[in-house]
Amino acid sequence: MVPHLVTALTGPINELEQRILESTPVIERWFRLEWMEHTPPFYTSVDIRNAGFKLAPVDTNLFPGGWNNLTNEMLPLAVQAAMAAIEKICPEAKNLLLVPENHTRNTFYLMNVAQLQRIFYSAGLNVRVGSLNPDIKEPTTIDLPNGDRVVLEPIIREGRRLGLKHFDPCTILLNNDLSAGVPGILEDLHEQYLLPPLHAGWHVRRKSNHFRAYEEVAKRFGKLVGIDPWLINPMFAQCGQVNFAEGAGLECLQTNVDALLAKIRRKYKEYGIQERPFVVVKADNGTYGMGVMMVRDAAELANLNRRTKNKMNVIKDGQQVSDVIIQEGVMTHERIHDAVAEPVVYMMDRYVVGGFYRVHAERGVDENLNAPGASFVPLAFEKSALQPQPGSPPGASVPNRFYMYGVVARLAMLAAAYELEATDPEAERYD
Amino acid sequence: MVPHLVTALTGPINELEQRILESTPVIERWFRLEWMEHTPPFYTSVDIRNAGFKLAPVDTNLFPGGWNNLTNEMLPLAVQAAMAAIEKICPEAKNLLLVPENHTRNTFYLMNVAQLQRIFYSAGLNVRVGSLNPDIKEPTTIDLPNGDRVVLEPIIREGRRLGLKHFDPCTILLNNDLSAGVPGILEDLHEQYLLPPLHAGWHVRRKSNHFRAYEEVAKRFGKLVGIDPWLINPMFAQCGQVNFAEGAGLECLQTNVDALLAKIRRKYKEYGIQERPFVVVKADNGTYGMGVMMVRDAAELANLNRRTKNKMNVIKDGQQVSDVIIQEGVMTHERIHDAVAEPVVYMMDRYVVGGFYRVHAERGVDENLNAPGASFVPLAFEKSALQPQPGSPPGASVPNRFYMYGVVARLAMLAAAYELEATDPEAERYD
Repeated sequence: MVPHLVTALTGPINELEQRILESTPVIERWFRLEWMEHTPPFYTSVDIRNAGFKLAPVDTNLFPGGWNNLTNEMLPLAVQAAMAAIEKICPEAKNLLLVPENHTRNTFYLMNVAQLQRIFYSAGLNVRVGSLNPDIKEPTTIDLPNGDRVVLEPIIREGRRLGLKHFDPCTILLNNDLSAGVPGILEDLHEQYLLPPLHAGWHVRRKSNHFRAYEEVAKRFGKLVGIDPWLINPMFAQCGQVNFAEGAGLECLQTNVDALLAKIRRKYKEYGIQERPFVVVKADNGTYGMGVMMVRDAAELANLNRRTKNKMNVIKDGQQVSDVIIQEGVMTHERIHDAVAEPVVYMMDRYVVGGFYRVHAERGVDENLNAPGASFVPLAFEKSALQPQPGSPPGASVPNRFYMYGVVARLAMLAAAYELEATDPEAERYD
Repeated sequence: MVPHLVTALTGPINELEQRILESTPVIERWFRLEWMEHTPPFYTSVDIRNAGFKLAPVDTNLFPGGWNNLTNEMLPLAVQAAMAAIEKICPEAKNLLLVPENHTRNTFYLMNVAQLQRIFYSAGLNVRVGSLNPDIKEPTTIDLPNGDRVVLEPIIREGRRLGLKHFDPCTILLNNDLSAGVPGILEDLHEQYLLPPLHAGWHVRRKSNHFRAYEEVAKRFGKLVGIDPWLINPMFAQCGQVNFAEGAGLECLQTNVDALLAKIRRKYKEYGIQERPFVVVKADNGTYGMGVMMVRDAAELANLNRRTKNKMNVIKDGQQVSDVIIQEGVMTHERIHDAVAEPVVYMMDRYVVGGFYRVHAERGVDENLNAPGASFVPLAFEKSALQPQPGSPPGASVPNRFYMYGVVARLAMLAAAYELEATDPEAERYD
């Protein structure tokens, strides 16, 4: 299936695309140099919103699920990137232990686990799946609707090493975002490589840290290719001490929503954009599309209904929301068969390896698509992010569009690398 | 277009496929460790022949042309591998100078040049083409039938550096096999990376060195996965001081052809193979499919006709043949639409990035297909060499077939790495 893009892209986004295409060697060299200084996250997915006049990442996932939504045609790229990643970390590696989320009944998620297993097997590793779920007391085989099969085994800690019965891995790959905190069994594993590092988990990560790092990256990139960084950067503010259930901390929210809407309005005026600005209020450590709300007017916050308060109060794994990020809303003007769509770009090590559209028929252009009812449309391979077509006029070329998505996704990944450096509890501090 | 394989593969080749599939993690790890010790050639293509009972490389090209025969779907893999290759060699690189063969009228070859330019541009380099051809006195634009365009510019040597007018490259990529020797302008370039190294050119390379290294690699691989190395190794012998025009040195040829045919007969008997053995006599430094002859009986050598003598006497760039390799003939039992076909596998750095079938409707299963009249059928991407399907029965799965081709091609590439180490004029010798 070939995604059908109906966006009528005119105005600044075409200029952005033009600048990015003209600058391909400069951009790729810049990334190359950045990766010499900074370690990319092991794997990353980035949600992107294309508003026509603006293109920005809105979420960066360091424990990406959804690998099963990549097409078979994309797998060789993922395998090749996995080979490169493994080679850097543990070239002698024979065994990889994959630690998934605890959902044992979500077959979509388990197809993702099977896909990751396939990728790393093809890259040259014996891959087994170690579950943190206390219900998994012995090897448990789960047959999946697509013909795949996952065997969940109970994870075993022996002294300083983590493994399974008769399976001692060199590397442990987390596909569990640690929203509920770090299980003791994962702590102090100094003899094995644990990837991503524990502080990439949502018990430590804050979206505001990420987007602060991204703002920095966007500024430098803007200078590099000669664009206003706002064209790729969603502005944001943050509030702590918020309690939606009790209505505490809402003044901070209102003030910041007001100020951010005013800033967006100024930018829209500067660019002659006729749309009505909105902001997205999100749990600063939220994931799975939980704890997300759109606001067009600060006054709305004074009158939240019970349902919205509940939705905003508790996120994945029952965590109570306290820190909140207020982010410039970026509409998505992409549609697939009339349904609103946003691209999700997948990366392994420093490489873009694929992506798909998240599509939601019942949501609007200014709504969160990461919600029940979303479906996934793979990007067809012809539309790979790696192949700009220098001759094509901007806006006219689908490969060019995806190259631009791949660039913006990698900017978000670079920001995540900065973020992880800044939040590394074991980093030596010289300041 | 999807290649249609009509080979009825039974017997030992299926065992080989089975062993290779079962051993994927072991094989990939083994390659990973080998590449820690040995540098892969910058890029490589390998011609493979699949006889049904045996699968072997028959030619390994270190200056591969034909990149234009790779499909667009394969390009992202090549770009990703090119990024990895460049990063290792010259991460700060901005500029790459591509030095092609001197054919300025062969549009097929020039499409290959344009394709290489596209790959390295996408990997983040400004790529320009510097011609060694003395006819190119100023930038010369050549429009190609597929809409591509190549600009050939005169190469300029300034002191210790090679470049073009206003273009100073960090890396020089040779796509010229140096059959006629090294032009002075390429010598003593110690400030820039020259890839592949000069001693990879056919003025130095000998097929016999390559296949001696390959024999070693095949033995070790055979031990690793538990197979008779003959199943992947073409036996060979060599003769020097041959002059086909004058009929000199033919006794050596006859003796060796006889002995090799006897060895093949013994192997065929061991495996119950009913085919008639043959050998291939080739110029030890030949390329472009030139200087190649099939022999079924040593007596044929006593009665070579004028045409065959001429064909064997002079190869690419008018080089006189003197060293000869006698190689076990490996039939190809693959066919595409009734025409005899052989796979050609392309690699960049250590990665398999694509391939195609060389198809020749007028040639037999025991003949050289690299000859005028050959055509090229891209391997469809679904059939990538990187994705074995562990569940499929051996022989039944096209992806499995191509994974096996990718493994054998990489064995030949590893042999080329050994070969280049052994023939490196600048290597320090401790023995």
